[in-house]
Amino acid sequence: MAPSKSPVVYLVGAGPGDPELLTRRGERLLRQATIVFYDALVDERLLELLPPTVERCFVGKRARRAATTQQRIVSLMIDAARAGHRVVRLKCGDPCVLGRGGEEAEALRAAGIDCQIVPGVSAAIAAAEQFGIPVTHRGLSSGVLTISGHAAAVYEPVLRALPPRSVTVVVLMGQRNCRAICQTLIGSGWPSDTPFARCAGAYTERARIWQTTLGQAALVDGPPLDDQPVTLVVGDVVGLRREHVESLLELDQAAIAAPDASLWDERRWEVL
Amino acid sequence: MAPSKSPVVYLVGAGPGDPELLTRRGERLLRQATIVFYDALVDERLLELLPPTVERCFVGKRARRAATTQQRIVSLMIDAARAGHRVVRLKCGDPCVLGRGGEEAEALRAAGIDCQIVPGVSAAIAAAEQFGIPVTHRGLSSGVLTISGHAAAVYEPVLRALPPRSVTVVVLMGQRNCRAICQTLIGSGWPSDTPFARCAGAYTERARIWQTTLGQAALVDGPPLDDQPVTLVVGDVVGLRREHVESLLELDQAAIAAPDASLWDERRWEVL
Repeated sequence: MAPSKSPVVYLVGAGPGDPELLTRRGERLLRQATIVFYDALVDERLLELLPPTVERCFVGKRARRAATTQQRIVSLMIDAARAGHRVVRLKCGDPCVLGRGGEEAEALRAAGIDCQIVPGVSAAIAAAEQFGIPVTHRGLSSGVLTISGHAAAVYEPVLRALPPRSVTVVVLMGQRNCRAICQTLIGSGWPSDTPFARCAGAYTERARIWQTTLGQAALVDGPPLDDQPVTLVVGDVVGLRREHVESLLELDQAAIAAPDASLWDERRWEVL
Repeated sequence: MAPSKSPVVYLVGAGPGDPELLTRRGERLLRQATIVFYDALVDERLLELLPPTVERCFVGKRARRAATTQQRIVSLMIDAARAGHRVVRLKCGDPCVLGRGGEEAEALRAAGIDCQIVPGVSAAIAAAEQFGIPVTHRGLSSGVLTISGHAAAVYEPVLRALPPRSVTVVVLMGQRNCRAICQTLIGSGWPSDTPFARCAGAYTERARIWQTTLGQAALVDGPPLDDQPVTLVVGDVVGLRREHVESLLELDQAAIAAPDASLWDERRWEVL
């Protein structure tokens, strides 16, 4: 394969799951690619869009197996671009919403490889929407805070300061610290009856929502979720879900099936 | 036209501008529609995707002319759905990020019309990305607050409380209150050298970015922007732009042309 004049890597946001939520540009770039690097959270149905000859490189993390390091991923992409490949790096959601897109772009450019970021539909917004929850709603919330729930050092100072119910709070990667996050908000004056939802596997076949109050979510964990990405949503907008969910025509039936409830107190959660 | 069994209206997020940033589902629904209601901010190039027989109803606001009221828009959609039309309501960005999608969905459902929300790429994230600014970046920002800049009563309590530089701040509809918003942040302890960007017309032919510091943006207005949607971005991530912008391959040349600077102090702003 002849090297192209200026190697380019496209960082493409895959959207929240459903391959139909990929952008048209993302689709075009996938169909033109000769090699694709993808994460564990990228829906495998997206790979069906690829021509059969395209190289597919899984660079994500699977349960109990180490992730490919960022350094290694970048190094593989640089090699592929220099070899003349049309490289697509497919990242779930939007590449720059807690997706390390900016970091990979910087590393590529430092190596002299050009890089273009193609935005995607972020689960930070769409996960709630699948269940009929608008992240903003006139009279209820005119803003949304999206934050990583991975480390208390990140979310605590912000959640402690945020005036109660002032905006919708969306937490990505907050599964492990879910109770602590809810406790932080309650400690900051958020009423314990503030509606709370945990959306899992949005826009996949395993889509689920659990709805309760902030107070209950601060006390009990939800059911286990395997490796599914989880989005926590806190705020009055969650209360709109009840009116909306009945009319989600294309919502997978799995979304309304009861989950494995072994670690689960049904009296405290509304399982849908 | 025979009425369909259960009338449905699709609220489709059009994305930030470029028709290629529409989702594949959005494209499919547009091609299947028989009538489309669209806003002023929806890029007209999207309408080129429509079959020629489709009815196109402009329901937005144009300079110095009153907008179609929300009530009227909903009423038109209800009539169309009941008449058997396949109705698409095309809204810029994502329907539920300060887009009144939830409100329109509620009104439709109250009238017995089913409604499905199709997420879109939000300008709240993508506007910055077009210029190489990732809204989050490890070590700089692990969260992003998106808020309406339309009314001080909404943004002031939140911006006053937010710990300085704790997350990236993205303000939509903040053009008119831009200086006041920056003054609020400075009054809350945000350093006046915090990087600030105003992105206009993202993903359109008139895309522009103006970059300066929070302190300067609190003192002077930028140039006039006609009817272009504006996204304000505040935070250290804006400082990453310089390294990125050179490699935005498909960025329209207009994005790096100098704007009309009649109301503009070039010494205080970096015009790109």
